Amino acid sequence: MSTGTGTGSHAGTGTGIVLGPNRYGKAESRVVRIVRDTARHEIRDLNVSTSLYGDFAAAHTDGDQSQVLPTDTQKNTAFALAKRHGVTSPEDYAIALGTRLLEATPAAEGAVVQVEEYAWDRIPVNGFGHDHAFVRRGGEVRTAGVEVTAAGAVVTSGLKDLVVLKSTGSEFKGFLRDEYTTLADADDRILATALRAEWQTRPGAQVDWSTAYEAVRALLLETFATTYSRALQETLYAMGRAVLTVHEDITRIAFVAPNKHHLLVDLEAFGLDNPGEVFIAADRPYGLIEAEVLREGVG
Amino acid sequence: MSTGTGTGSHAGTGTGIVLGPNRYGKAESRVVRIVRDTARHEIRDLNVSTSLYGDFAAAHTDGDQSQVLPTDTQKNTAFALAKRHGVTSPEDYAIALGTRLLEATPAAEGAVVQVEEYAWDRIPVNGFGHDHAFVRRGGEVRTAGVEVTAAGAVVTSGLKDLVVLKSTGSEFKGFLRDEYTTLADADDRILATALRAEWQTRPGAQVDWSTAYEAVRALLLETFATTYSRALQETLYAMGRAVLTVHEDITRIAFVAPNKHHLLVDLEAFGLDNPGEVFIAADRPYGLIEAEVLREGVG
Amino acid sequence: MSTGTGTGSHAGTGTGIVLGPNRYGKAESRVVRIVRDTARHEIRDLNVSTSLYGDFAAAHTDGDQSQVLPTDTQKNTAFALAKRHGVTSPEDYAIALGTRLLEATPAAEGAVVQVEEYAWDRIPVNGFGHDHAFVRRGGEVRTAGVEVTAAGAVVTSGLKDLVVLKSTGSEFKGFLRDEYTTLADADDRILATALRAEWQTRPGAQVDWSTAYEAVRALLLETFATTYSRALQETLYAMGRAVLTVHEDITRIAFVAPNKHHLLVDLEAFGLDNPGEVFIAADRPYGLIEAEVLREGVG
Amino acid sequence: MSTGTGTGSHAGTGTGIVLGPNRYGKAESRVVRIVRDTARHEIRDLNVSTSLYGDFAAAHTDGDQSQVLPTDTQKNTAFALAKRHGVTSPEDYAIALGTRLLEATPAAEGAVVQVEEYAWDRIPVNGFGHDHAFVRRGGEVRTAGVEVTAAGAVVTSGLKDLVVLKSTGSEFKGFLRDEYTTLADADDRILATALRAEWQTRPGAQVDWSTAYEAVRALLLETFATTYSRALQETLYAMGRAVLTVHEDITRIAFVAPNKHHLLVDLEAFGLDNPGEVFIAADRPYGLIEAEVLREGVG
Repeated sequence: MSTGTGTGSHAGTGTGIVLGPNRYGKAESRVVRIVRDTARHEIRDLNVSTSLYGDFAAAHTDGDQSQVLPTDTQKNTAFALAKRHGVTSPEDYAIALGTRLLEATPAAEGAVVQVEEYAWDRIPVNGFGHDHAFVRRGGEVRTAGVEVTAAGAVVTSGLKDLVVLKSTGSEFKGFLRDEYTTLADADDRILATALRAEWQTRPGAQVDWSTAYEAVRALLLETFATTYSRALQETLYAMGRAVLTVHEDITRIAFVAPNKHHLLVDLEAFGLDNPGEVFIAADRPYGLIEAEVLREGVG
Repeated sequence: MSTGTGTGSHAGTGTGIVLGPNRYGKAESRVVRIVRDTARHEIRDLNVSTSLYGDFAAAHTDGDQSQVLPTDTQKNTAFALAKRHGVTSPEDYAIALGTRLLEATPAAEGAVVQVEEYAWDRIPVNGFGHDHAFVRRGGEVRTAGVEVTAAGAVVTSGLKDLVVLKSTGSEFKGFLRDEYTTLADADDRILATALRAEWQTRPGAQVDWSTAYEAVRALLLETFATTYSRALQETLYAMGRAVLTVHEDITRIAFVAPNKHHLLVDLEAFGLDNPGEVFIAADRPYGLIEAEVLREGVG
Repeated sequence: MSTGTGTGSHAGTGTGIVLGPNRYGKAESRVVRIVRDTARHEIRDLNVSTSLYGDFAAAHTDGDQSQVLPTDTQKNTAFALAKRHGVTSPEDYAIALGTRLLEATPAAEGAVVQVEEYAWDRIPVNGFGHDHAFVRRGGEVRTAGVEVTAAGAVVTSGLKDLVVLKSTGSEFKGFLRDEYTTLADADDRILATALRAEWQTRPGAQVDWSTAYEAVRALLLETFATTYSRALQETLYAMGRAVLTVHEDITRIAFVAPNKHHLLVDLEAFGLDNPGEVFIAADRPYGLIEAEVLREGVG
Repeated sequence: MSTGTGTGSHAGTGTGIVLGPNRYGKAESRVVRIVRDTARHEIRDLNVSTSLYGDFAAAHTDGDQSQVLPTDTQKNTAFALAKRHGVTSPEDYAIALGTRLLEATPAAEGAVVQVEEYAWDRIPVNGFGHDHAFVRRGGEVRTAGVEVTAAGAVVTSGLKDLVVLKSTGSEFKGFLRDEYTTLADADDRILATALRAEWQTRPGAQVDWSTAYEAVRALLLETFATTYSRALQETLYAMGRAVLTVHEDITRIAFVAPNKHHLLVDLEAFGLDNPGEVFIAADRPYGLIEAEVLREGVG
């Protein structure tokens, strides 16, 4: 069969079949950076993915790699910059990495860098954190996404797998019913989710990324805790408003929130009442709520 | 804190903070449908996710569920339609399910249904497939995605986790080099990927979904096998062209293909040569190639 | 083919084929227990697996279930006891559950209960932990295993997925070499593992399980941090000795510890030195070290 | 704290704290072996884990590695033998690898090798399997475990994740009931499991490992299909008897079989009957049945 030796920039002239959107990169380079300038070490533990998009048609249509910076080189760059530039925050590192990749690749129109960061705590010894021994914190993963183009860098900060639960203060009732509805109104239920949140910062804003991250995370948690919930949708919206209200440089925040159902177990057959005490945590299916909150006028 | 009791359709009047895109649904209902009209049973094994989007602002801003068809009802509908409508193909079932959910929810503008199907084979007994005993086939998962709106249904068919490998007939050379490039030209390497492909069919086309699926799958495999590869990009493009050339009703096909690196192991220290015989299959990082092939004029 | 209608207690008389060791139960009941006697709720989040062993031959050989307490009943019991008995610690709950299952099943010689517990923290609001809103802590999982027989209960406490790392204070050198050895001596390397530890308490000992758990966990961490490591084996042994030295009621402790390799990245080609600063965290293969430390005379 | 500089072979003299059972090795080396002696290539795709046990006390108590063959060397050996010895079957390769590791390590009393093999099929092109292009089969994973000591090699063959289902021909009734039993008798249910089976071959038997594997796999499937099931226990026992009856060199076979529950969905509220047609495949909890079948007189 033909392997696409078309001559056009998007190939396939004459057949009406063309190359569409495309990008390529290296996913999940596990970069661990130790700062050991003093006896008190620091650790940054990252999972780094990079990709490039632009005019790479010839690689697809003619097997011509002359404009393709190998994914292996992208990986090398991720490790080299962890040394040369350092990792003060995932956002700052991602900006540097994306900028470099774009510069190194004339055919690229944009570079996208995604970073996950895993947090570590110092191991406590006699009440003090140890200099060079750490325990992984677990819990949520911090994320940063940067898209670098000639126009500058757009930065998205975030977190995922922030698992939260309210044992009361949540209802779900008055919903639309049809012939397939069997769910009863719930006046008091468990509300739980594994939150994914991503927020975008106004380009050019001067931000201390890690300070901002901690503040947003705390505010998301606090709002979740203190907002009476008539649905997960309402809770997410409240969380988003809280963040945008307090953080002026944040222009939008998007949530993906599985509704991790905790089903009340019927213990009546065993002569036991169960006023919201014993639940089974279900795996599947789960509700899935997605919503964005943004400033008026933001695209 | 304020929980967003705004009055506007998109809430928050006066604050400049508004609700953006949102949707909600039930993910991963594991629907198993046995057809037992005769002694020779059939099995369809599905993972079904549904979601609705439209004007659900009140649920976010006022905790008003009156327009919200519960995700529990969406799940019930998925199971009920497996009986009432049946499952002749994931596409056909998804169209029926999405259509029903849209009808049942006045505030919805669209319903999105995603289905994964796991294939089963009859267990062979004395050379014949058994009537009611099955073994799960493994390998790739068939997928179907349907978006139903007032304008009709857009159907995306696909597969994921189709793991393929060529032990020769693949090179990667002549690529762009910079100061972080250490990769050498490769004249003969292993090429392997876990393919995800999704193709869209012209709305209104009369398609036998399962026949088409098998044909596309076979063509993807055959093209992968017979195309000399100068890069995974070129291979994907060739696969896409082959599908669009043969299947006139398919308007576009998109690929996500991790380059599953198989690294030649250096055995020289042990007095052994290794002309493409012993490899280590690496986990991370991996290349990640994404590309779409489409007909000219298709959006 | 024959389906084993043997008459012997272990079946198959005459064929010389017999039933060997067997057990059955219900795995991974996700029991969530909320204590809401006051406005300040408590949460215990458990994954509970139970099994029974004893004389269940007839179920295998004759399809006779008359001595088989269904796994569904075992699940029901797990939920019912979370209410009736409560969950003050995974160990205490597991003892009660195992004891009940053994009593309910005349043919059983032993009941085995395995519990995983996921820790939650109160969400901080204005510096105080919230009454009924929680965030999952992440990090290690607490485990408890109980085997109940007529002779009493043997309790194993433990943890898994405690991920720890030392950025210095670890060497590996002077090892045995053969023709396949290429590893160089390392004077200073990263040592990291995802620890699994299980310790057994002297039957009949009066133990505050949760206090003991916290103390052992802290001691394991502290010993890991402060012990110079000449190999992961030495570190594990030191950790075991520390626990047995301090905790007189603990008779043995067993470790499973993957050596999570962090490989120093060669940056020389890029004109950069790398004195223990930039590593790639490898997935596979990994070292795997298993060792037990016990008191003399303990079986 | 003390780091265990004891002098005894099992350390800690005077404290009563000693080293117990221990072993170490390298887990999950992903060895891919291509045979390319002709244009028609072959592929063997393995996941190899090795470990050694014996007198390695000094490594634990004194940080003395002089008797320790590094896990890195074990990995190197796994790759080198894939070339030098080749991979005709996972069993044969594992015997060679274990034998070599034992020879290379004077302090070792035994070497344990575990291999998983992932099957690949040739990609069909015009009705024939391609010479060097493959598609991963999916489905069950073949396993082999070998323990090599001075007394010889004990070989365990097996498989895991063989997912099978019967849509009828399975009941569960007449079981023991107690106050926590709510399960009703089932005359006709789905029986499904993800089978793990391991069988041991008489030491010294001349076996064509791959032929035997295919025969046992086929017999397990056929017996599952054709045996009316009064419980998963009975089905497993029948499968074990079938294997031991036909394969004289096999001395024992052990099963681990999760009962993957498929729950009949209640559609009555929607005016639909459901005579065994629509099920929800549940994730957790699941039954877990373990049983061994062996020849009389086998330990």
